[in-house]
Amino acid sequence: MKKILLLNGPNLNMLGKREPGIYGETTLKQLEERIAELAREYGAELEACQSNHEGALIDKLYEANEAEFDGVIFNPGAFTHYSYSLRDCIAGISVPVIEVHISNIHAREPFRHVSVTAAVTAGQVVGLGLKGYELALSALLEKGRN
Amino acid sequence: MKKILLLNGPNLNMLGKREPGIYGETTLKQLEERIAELAREYGAELEACQSNHEGALIDKLYEANEAEFDGVIFNPGAFTHYSYSLRDCIAGISVPVIEVHISNIHAREPFRHVSVTAAVTAGQVVGLGLKGYELALSALLEKGRN
Amino acid sequence: MKKILLLNGPNLNMLGKREPGIYGETTLKQLEERIAELAREYGAELEACQSNHEGALIDKLYEANEAEFDGVIFNPGAFTHYSYSLRDCIAGISVPVIEVHISNIHAREPFRHVSVTAAVTAGQVVGLGLKGYELALSALLEKGRN
Amino acid sequence: MKKILLLNGPNLNMLGKREPGIYGETTLKQLEERIAELAREYGAELEACQSNHEGALIDKLYEANEAEFDGVIFNPGAFTHYSYSLRDCIAGISVPVIEVHISNIHAREPFRHVSVTAAVTAGQVVGLGLKGYELALSALLEKGRN
Amino acid sequence: MKKILLLNGPNLNMLGKREPGIYGETTLKQLEERIAELAREYGAELEACQSNHEGALIDKLYEANEAEFDGVIFNPGAFTHYSYSLRDCIAGISVPVIEVHISNIHAREPFRHVSVTAAVTAGQVVGLGLKGYELALSALLEKGRN
Amino acid sequence: MKKILLLNGPNLNMLGKREPGIYGETTLKQLEERIAELAREYGAELEACQSNHEGALIDKLYEANEAEFDGVIFNPGAFTHYSYSLRDCIAGISVPVIEVHISNIHAREPFRHVSVTAAVTAGQVVGLGLKGYELALSALLEKGRN
Amino acid sequence: MKKILLLNGPNLNMLGKREPGIYGETTLKQLEERIAELAREYGAELEACQSNHEGALIDKLYEANEAEFDGVIFNPGAFTHYSYSLRDCIAGISVPVIEVHISNIHAREPFRHVSVTAAVTAGQVVGLGLKGYELALSALLEKGRN
Amino acid sequence: MKKILLLNGPNLNMLGKREPGIYGETTLKQLEERIAELAREYGAELEACQSNHEGALIDKLYEANEAEFDGVIFNPGAFTHYSYSLRDCIAGISVPVIEVHISNIHAREPFRHVSVTAAVTAGQVVGLGLKGYELALSALLEKGRN
Amino acid sequence: MKKILLLNGPNLNMLGKREPGIYGETTLKQLEERIAELAREYGAELEACQSNHEGALIDKLYEANEAEFDGVIFNPGAFTHYSYSLRDCIAGISVPVIEVHISNIHAREPFRHVSVTAAVTAGQVVGLGLKGYELALSALLEKGRN
Amino acid sequence: MKKILLLNGPNLNMLGKREPGIYGETTLKQLEERIAELAREYGAELEACQSNHEGALIDKLYEANEAEFDGVIFNPGAFTHYSYSLRDCIAGISVPVIEVHISNIHAREPFRHVSVTAAVTAGQVVGLGLKGYELALSALLEKGRN
Amino acid sequence: MKKILLLNGPNLNMLGKREPGIYGETTLKQLEERIAELAREYGAELEACQSNHEGALIDKLYEANEAEFDGVIFNPGAFTHYSYSLRDCIAGISVPVIEVHISNIHAREPFRHVSVTAAVTAGQVVGLGLKGYELALSALLEKGRN
Amino acid sequence: MKKILLLNGPNLNMLGKREPGIYGETTLKQLEERIAELAREYGAELEACQSNHEGALIDKLYEANEAEFDGVIFNPGAFTHYSYSLRDCIAGISVPVIEVHISNIHAREPFRHVSVTAAVTAGQVVGLGLKGYELALSALLEKGRN
Repeated sequence: MKKILLLNGPNLNMLGKREPGIYGETTLKQLEERIAELAREYGAELEACQSNHEGALIDKLYEANEAEFDGVIFNPGAFTHYSYSLRDCIAGISVPVIEVHISNIHAREPFRHVSVTAAVTAGQVVGLGLKGYELALSALLEKGRN
Repeated sequence: MKKILLLNGPNLNMLGKREPGIYGETTLKQLEERIAELAREYGAELEACQSNHEGALIDKLYEANEAEFDGVIFNPGAFTHYSYSLRDCIAGISVPVIEVHISNIHAREPFRHVSVTAAVTAGQVVGLGLKGYELALSALLEKGRN
Repeated sequence: MKKILLLNGPNLNMLGKREPGIYGETTLKQLEERIAELAREYGAELEACQSNHEGALIDKLYEANEAEFDGVIFNPGAFTHYSYSLRDCIAGISVPVIEVHISNIHAREPFRHVSVTAAVTAGQVVGLGLKGYELALSALLEKGRN
Repeated sequence: MKKILLLNGPNLNMLGKREPGIYGETTLKQLEERIAELAREYGAELEACQSNHEGALIDKLYEANEAEFDGVIFNPGAFTHYSYSLRDCIAGISVPVIEVHISNIHAREPFRHVSVTAAVTAGQVVGLGLKGYELALSALLEKGRN
Repeated sequence: MKKILLLNGPNLNMLGKREPGIYGETTLKQLEERIAELAREYGAELEACQSNHEGALIDKLYEANEAEFDGVIFNPGAFTHYSYSLRDCIAGISVPVIEVHISNIHAREPFRHVSVTAAVTAGQVVGLGLKGYELALSALLEKGRN
Repeated sequence: MKKILLLNGPNLNMLGKREPGIYGETTLKQLEERIAELAREYGAELEACQSNHEGALIDKLYEANEAEFDGVIFNPGAFTHYSYSLRDCIAGISVPVIEVHISNIHAREPFRHVSVTAAVTAGQVVGLGLKGYELALSALLEKGRN
Repeated sequence: MKKILLLNGPNLNMLGKREPGIYGETTLKQLEERIAELAREYGAELEACQSNHEGALIDKLYEANEAEFDGVIFNPGAFTHYSYSLRDCIAGISVPVIEVHISNIHAREPFRHVSVTAAVTAGQVVGLGLKGYELALSALLEKGRN
Repeated sequence: MKKILLLNGPNLNMLGKREPGIYGETTLKQLEERIAELAREYGAELEACQSNHEGALIDKLYEANEAEFDGVIFNPGAFTHYSYSLRDCIAGISVPVIEVHISNIHAREPFRHVSVTAAVTAGQVVGLGLKGYELALSALLEKGRN
Repeated sequence: MKKILLLNGPNLNMLGKREPGIYGETTLKQLEERIAELAREYGAELEACQSNHEGALIDKLYEANEAEFDGVIFNPGAFTHYSYSLRDCIAGISVPVIEVHISNIHAREPFRHVSVTAAVTAGQVVGLGLKGYELALSALLEKGRN
Repeated sequence: MKKILLLNGPNLNMLGKREPGIYGETTLKQLEERIAELAREYGAELEACQSNHEGALIDKLYEANEAEFDGVIFNPGAFTHYSYSLRDCIAGISVPVIEVHISNIHAREPFRHVSVTAAVTAGQVVGLGLKGYELALSALLEKGRN
Repeated sequence: MKKILLLNGPNLNMLGKREPGIYGETTLKQLEERIAELAREYGAELEACQSNHEGALIDKLYEANEAEFDGVIFNPGAFTHYSYSLRDCIAGISVPVIEVHISNIHAREPFRHVSVTAAVTAGQVVGLGLKGYELALSALLEKGRN
Repeated sequence: MKKILLLNGPNLNMLGKREPGIYGETTLKQLEERIAELAREYGAELEACQSNHEGALIDKLYEANEAEFDGVIFNPGAFTHYSYSLRDCIAGISVPVIEVHISNIHAREPFRHVSVTAAVTAGQVVGLGLKGYELALSALLEKGRN
């Protein structure tokens, strides 16, 4: 059975509570349950994790890689724009990672237009709301391990 | 019955023939048939169009908007990086447009890292190969008209 | 009798329909009729043309130059910001061209602050709404051919 | 009866004397008389003022605003390129201001391509010689107070 | 009784020990006591916290927001210059945050001249030494919750 | 008895009248009275001055320095962003100057994010409304002459 | 018999008529005949084509590639400086392309110093007048197909 | 008898009092007397003037030009770095102007490395202390009027 | 007996496992043992530590400083390129720090060419593989405490 | 009889030995002989020279100019990218110089995309291998002395 | 008796022959004689030297420093804009160096606006023709050795 | 027996004499002897060379490569920051080169932060004083020829 990690970065603990005009009203817990449910429908298993700590996200990615997960759905939050440490981590693991952004980062402040992690991910789904997580799951389950 | 436009920009007529290491071996015709088939499965109708002419793409987008299409899957090719005319066109129509790139543009030459159209699209799917077109179709059929 | 070309670039076919908050509710057809009427009052003749195709705009400018028009009122739309081909065309013809922008481009997105065509036009009228076309007509009819 | 302020900034006291190849041979006094004459024809009243002092220009703009002028024709001279104080002043008054430049600033030195005041004016007329002042007058007399 | 959080970021544990020429000789503990004492005088309650961990600062800010604190005095240390994660956190909470810098960051190295957090704070007090913390406290106790 | 100069730069004569959404509804006269009152409470004397003229502000600063004032509360308005002359003046006098901005300049247009005067002032208070003037007064009365 | 395409981009229809000080007095027709004559001398066949339309140039390049031409002499005109679509087209075809510029683009305006197509051509001949087309022909007839 | 204007810009009233480490201990009055004395030795007449007001400097330059002075020794102070109004003024007068800086501006802060006035002056003498004024005088008295 | 800290930053836990083409096949554990062995040969004591957490690295550096270590061999991994917090920490401690990079960062992606920490370290050893750690140890044992 | 100088700059002594993948396997001596042979066929005389010394190349160019050579084929090697001294030399001599680059510099590292000498040469031949030297010879022999 | 070195850099061997419109018609030999003559009048001795070789200029500067010259008049030619080696040399010697430019480099191409050597010289005389050398001599003979 | 070249670039002839605060008091001759002595201890042979001439350094590097030296310890002095000719030379030889800087270039002027040669060297040792030369020697003697 395939295993997928749903990993959310800083401030996504506030999903559904913070700036609902941008991020909607679904909470992180509801999102994680919805994606886990969908994974089960696809015959796969989902583990969900969120942290505001860059180091904890790196540790988690290595753990998933060691445990031979089949894919990671990763919303790095604002680390997208400056965490070269996360970039190096993703570049060095073999499990494929898809970067997801809920809002259309290209329609917001200039600093959000640049992603330092995108170059080393398998791909990105941007601006399609929580639907983006579902699409990333669907894409990963068709992709094999690098 | 919902109507979707699959619009491909410059050089995508060469899909499957040009740089298969980057773009794969499926031809444009095969891609259009695959997405049309999937649209039918979803109970929707697909029209496909490709052009190397910026003006023709703009004309086509207005035509689809007039004809009350429910969504556009758009790979603007290299126009992504400089066509402010296409940007203005997308900004001015009410049919939602999802931007698709087959390859991971953030892992290629610097000029490909910037999209001048992304800010006015509904979202982007990048780097997931031809699967990206399928994901965009799936997202559009859940989204209503703006 | 003096002949003036009223030339509108990409997306101006949508005048009065697209983003009325920015561009107003007069349609392109109504604008063209209004300026033609004013030209007649001034004892001149007006030909109007719009295209979303860069090449077609260039062809039209050469045609007007060949036909010894006395002036061109030109709103290049978004080509203003990147079409060095239009710039070269305007630089190479002898009929004077006045660049018109309906909205105040300096109060909008940064990419709109730069005009690559302005340097080779006779002058610009910016941000004065459709009145700008009338002012350009008035200025051209007092100016001779270069 | 409508009241219009014709305001000229630094170095325009030299109009007709300085660099006639760029600015022509009409003097400032002649220009002011010509525009006053035209205003009278339009049934309006014109006050004219020139200063080389940034602070004096700001003071004058507030005075015109207090006195409920109906419009300002303003050539800020080189302050166009750096006077954020003038920009703040124009942004804070309700009388509409049209920015006029005699020469085509986009065809001259790079520092002249940027206007820090344009974004807060009603519009700009550029490169059309002294005719530009007439066009600005005509545009203001059709525009109401903000 | 109003509750205020005094939050200090990386390297401020060394206050009074590190670079006394820049930061003075008062230790962090002495500062925290002085501000707590002043809060008591103002009839308010102060909680103090310092961390070198970006994630811990984010967690603490959410905790204060949840606990309905009335204000945060925050010296983000060097995170000021790159932590978009802290910026997103501050933007998403309703408790007002005042940014404090002990030294005049504009008189030091260029990288210190830019604050990525300032835009989403209520305001900043810069360069006034430890007095800045007192001023921020005074300002917060007059301001209500957003 | 200590003497403090309250110096306001261009456009602050319009305080309470211009853009109340940004600057509030208190007039300059009311502000000056409020700060003078507070100074008296602190046992100090306040002189207030406003000018739209850069040269007048420089002259005033030298006058205060000569007269051995104990501090200057200075809101340079838009001169903040380009007046290297004011910068040189402040750098050359011994009376301490605190820079005050009513609005959060870091949350507004990019040109407002840079202060060319900040580096040579004693410190800055930004975004805290008219309260900022009070905080600056309080800080100056605790600081000695350089 | 080897086949060579002589392809000229926007505004080169005006060769010999436009700015003779820069481009000389030979017309496009004369140039095409001269190069065709030279090709015949070399025992090769030349097809000549000019268009002001970016899309038409792309279509022509694919057509020549399909028809197994042995080389393309290409003067992209101003598209040189922004047409990433032409760049992608040239990168994806196997027929070698030599870029020719009549004038020394490095001695003209700064925007002409950058070629976005050069990186994917076989080489460039710049500033040597119409002689440059002859040199390119000579070079192509010694080069095999990629 | 030749007439020379010695013009000093903002903050030079403080010469000998402000930052003696950079500017020395001679006062402005002493400098003006020394240069006047030297002019007399050379058989010329010197008028000296200093102002902190940009407009006053412009007015003075026009006055000297009208009065047919034979040269201007000008230290624009910090206006060197941003006053395009002074630049336009110098460009438009026929009396030759030599720019003098007491300190070596290239060895100080980066903003001092750029002079916006230098391009339109006859030349510059930089970093040679008060001696620079003497050298400028000597150079002007050998140069005729433009 | 001298004490040296060997500190490795993010992703160096993967040494020998991740991208062996760049970093070689020796594991972190083997490296730490090798350097400890060498330290013993030099009559010194080595403590080794690795973390993916920026805050933990800062805490560790303060701990080593408190414990009066004689030197730190520090490979900050990707924090090299953005951690101003680490920079401030190193600047504030008295124990000398030598920065080590295994690969030649100047021959890799542009973001790796800039080190924000280098300016405050004692020196750097770059591109010499694991040998670089040995050289840093050798250099530290000859250097005294600042 | 016409005289041509073949001048090669730094590192071209290694032609055929260094990086044959980029520069081919023909040695400098063989190249010089080949071009000399071709010159003889054209009825001209060739002198060949190579140096790694910027000053020697400048001296040689002046010598050729003095000796009334009819043209220079010049590959400046890496001096292309920074030698403003060579640029000034070429600008000041009357013998026409054609710049040759063996490899396509626009397809290599960014620093190679800029030529500081190109603006003052007669033209450039780039990326066509050793054939480029032959083309330059052919072009020079048809061009007269400036 | 004081000793002064007159040092001219690349291309100044062509003085009077190259671009007389910019540099005049006096030859280098005539200049050197004129300055030597003036030195004798001042009771000093002049040695003159010119080289197109950067290394030779450096060697000469060290030689003059060793020989305890009292000053150097140095026109570095185009090395002004990129020779950090000359900058380091000048910074390390105790003999004062005055940088001279014949033409007004600020009125020419942008690359000439930056001097990398100016910061370490005693001062600069720019744009005053050959008179600049005389002024530099006069200044040096009043200055002592550093 | 292994042979190593110790190559020092411009201004290093002044080692121990110039700016001892930055470079120490050991002379070049003493350094060369110290490293030669150390080489002998390691059983290798050292040749030492210094030049202020870029071309001479290039020639020397080729000579060492021809003579099959086993490594080069190279301090390029200021050439580090602009000599692309040296870069090309190092890239084209097979003998490994280690770049050494005595001072911490990252803690000095911004132009010193960039090395154009570093990318093609085997590695760099920076800021460790003369000890850096010893470390480079030690590293080279463990490395084989490329």
